[in-house]
Amino acid sequence: MTLASPIVPVILSGGSGTRLWPMSRPEMPKQMLALTAEETMLQLTVSRIRAERFAAPVVVASAAHADLVEAQLDAMGLPAQALILEPAGRNTAPAIALAALAVEDRTAPLLVMPSDHVIADVAAFHEAIARAMPLVDKGWLITFGITPDGPETGYGYIQEGEAIVPGVHRVDRFVEKPPLEAAQKMIASGDHVWNGGIFLFRADAYLDALGNFEPAMVEATTRAMGLATRDGTRITPDAAAFASARSQSIDYAVMERAERVAVVPVAMGWSDVGSWDALHAISDRDGEGNVLNGEVIALDTTNCLVRSDRARVAMVGVSDLIVVASGDDILILPRGRGQDVKRLLEAMKE
Amino acid sequence: MTLASPIVPVILSGGSGTRLWPMSRPEMPKQMLALTAEETMLQLTVSRIRAERFAAPVVVASAAHADLVEAQLDAMGLPAQALILEPAGRNTAPAIALAALAVEDRTAPLLVMPSDHVIADVAAFHEAIARAMPLVDKGWLITFGITPDGPETGYGYIQEGEAIVPGVHRVDRFVEKPPLEAAQKMIASGDHVWNGGIFLFRADAYLDALGNFEPAMVEATTRAMGLATRDGTRITPDAAAFASARSQSIDYAVMERAERVAVVPVAMGWSDVGSWDALHAISDRDGEGNVLNGEVIALDTTNCLVRSDRARVAMVGVSDLIVVASGDDILILPRGRGQDVKRLLEAMKE
Repeated sequence: MTLASPIVPVILSGGSGTRLWPMSRPEMPKQMLALTAEETMLQLTVSRIRAERFAAPVVVASAAHADLVEAQLDAMGLPAQALILEPAGRNTAPAIALAALAVEDRTAPLLVMPSDHVIADVAAFHEAIARAMPLVDKGWLITFGITPDGPETGYGYIQEGEAIVPGVHRVDRFVEKPPLEAAQKMIASGDHVWNGGIFLFRADAYLDALGNFEPAMVEATTRAMGLATRDGTRITPDAAAFASARSQSIDYAVMERAERVAVVPVAMGWSDVGSWDALHAISDRDGEGNVLNGEVIALDTTNCLVRSDRARVAMVGVSDLIVVASGDDILILPRGRGQDVKRLLEAMKE
Repeated sequence: MTLASPIVPVILSGGSGTRLWPMSRPEMPKQMLALTAEETMLQLTVSRIRAERFAAPVVVASAAHADLVEAQLDAMGLPAQALILEPAGRNTAPAIALAALAVEDRTAPLLVMPSDHVIADVAAFHEAIARAMPLVDKGWLITFGITPDGPETGYGYIQEGEAIVPGVHRVDRFVEKPPLEAAQKMIASGDHVWNGGIFLFRADAYLDALGNFEPAMVEATTRAMGLATRDGTRITPDAAAFASARSQSIDYAVMERAERVAVVPVAMGWSDVGSWDALHAISDRDGEGNVLNGEVIALDTTNCLVRSDRARVAMVGVSDLIVVASGDDILILPRGRGQDVKRLLEAMKE
């Protein structure tokens, strides 16, 4: 009986997180960093599936980060059942296909999660998973819809349709990152949620749907896994075969096109920690509204985010500033300008 | 005839310049740094006396900086005739006494200068020196009065009395660093100038005056020089003898008490570069009002001073900020708060 199958967490660790430069870098991306707690974002992700109903996770990561991922999971006492090392990044649809193909029981439910998000209310997350399970067992593809707390323009939105069972709705439409006015309307409507990039479905349901819309991708990933080299729990798919899969998100490839797609709205203190501003917003602040990490001496300083991994930062008389010193790089910008880190990185490339 | 004696520049290199932390540090004080040009402040000071009428300088410095001072002067092709290495700091009055005692011709005029000031208009400085020389030869003690450009509370003031010769005045009074209101009144009066800490007098005139008011100091410094060890141009006064001299400024010890004291007012683009704010004010600014040194990427950034000797500084959307990164220290404060660097240093000691 499939009801008895434990849920296999599939953790996607492919992001590079440039918006959290200079802490986040290609060799040490955001999910590997301890930004919100003593644990890294990856470790916090793993800690959310430390429960009876979950199997050991399948982690899909860049080959460059194999040792780091393994060390961080070992430190939590929650090693992966499979660590799939992508020879190249191909976005989420092929990555999830690799994970689905690595699971022996194709009827197993997969809980697909990014490795670099925060979920403050894990109980609410688990409750939402439980709500979705009856439909998952019937082959539905589930996405989790984050109850929005403002007209964010940096997220995709999902419009809820009719309820299938209590708390699980058909998806009326997916909306790409909207302009502000459209975001405001969607918030006002009350029936839109953020697309949090967390999914739940049976491995076979995903592969079937992917086969309908992207048969070449299933063929490429199947071949890559057939030719994969294995070393303990490490699986390295064949590079040439995997490279032939086209780069595509699961939203485009499957969720926006499949029939039996449902959304589970959930308020669970979610954040993608997508910028230094977001980190300031979700962090505990001191009496002056500051979030200070590292050796920081701050006088007459309010509402600042300061992080330093080596240098001593001495500041006086500043407000609403983001200061991040990592290695030999120093970032300084006002709060609210966190999205401009990308501009700085482009300017530095020149 | 004393008229023929070349002027002996006496350069005081004892300051520690804490207000320019983190660039300025005890082991690398402000005068050793290139803050306003490719040359260091000490080198710029020496370059001002590269003229016929000046002898090679006598430099009084901390023993800890002997090699640095020598290297910087050698690089300018202007080695010291004597490098007097203070075993301990005793303020300016004893330091100048050491220099006066080191000069063989006691009738020689000494031009006493701090090593860490900027003088943009060297011709005006030389002209002021020439104006003072007839009185110097007669044994007067000369101080140079900087034409003030605002009611600064960080400087001492000198009230000009009657003219002795054109452009040289008796001193009516010395005023310690005043409160703002008093400074405003002195500026409004039109007859007050800043005490720039630059002096001109014959060696014997200084030693005579010092002997009148601080005989023990003359005794201590004379003994320290009598017992000094010499190595080439390096002179190290006896530590115990010098330590017995009391720590006193030339202003307190001599200038405010002697009879024949005159002030030469001069507008010569002077700055003591006493803070990062002062450095921003006297530096060439780019089209956005920024003064950027080191590897700095600045987008939408205006009226900032940014200096870095190693780290790369990336900033966007900030204004009127001072950012100084040196070694493993980063200083951040708004323009206008430069005096608060001292508070930061005190906070860091705790």
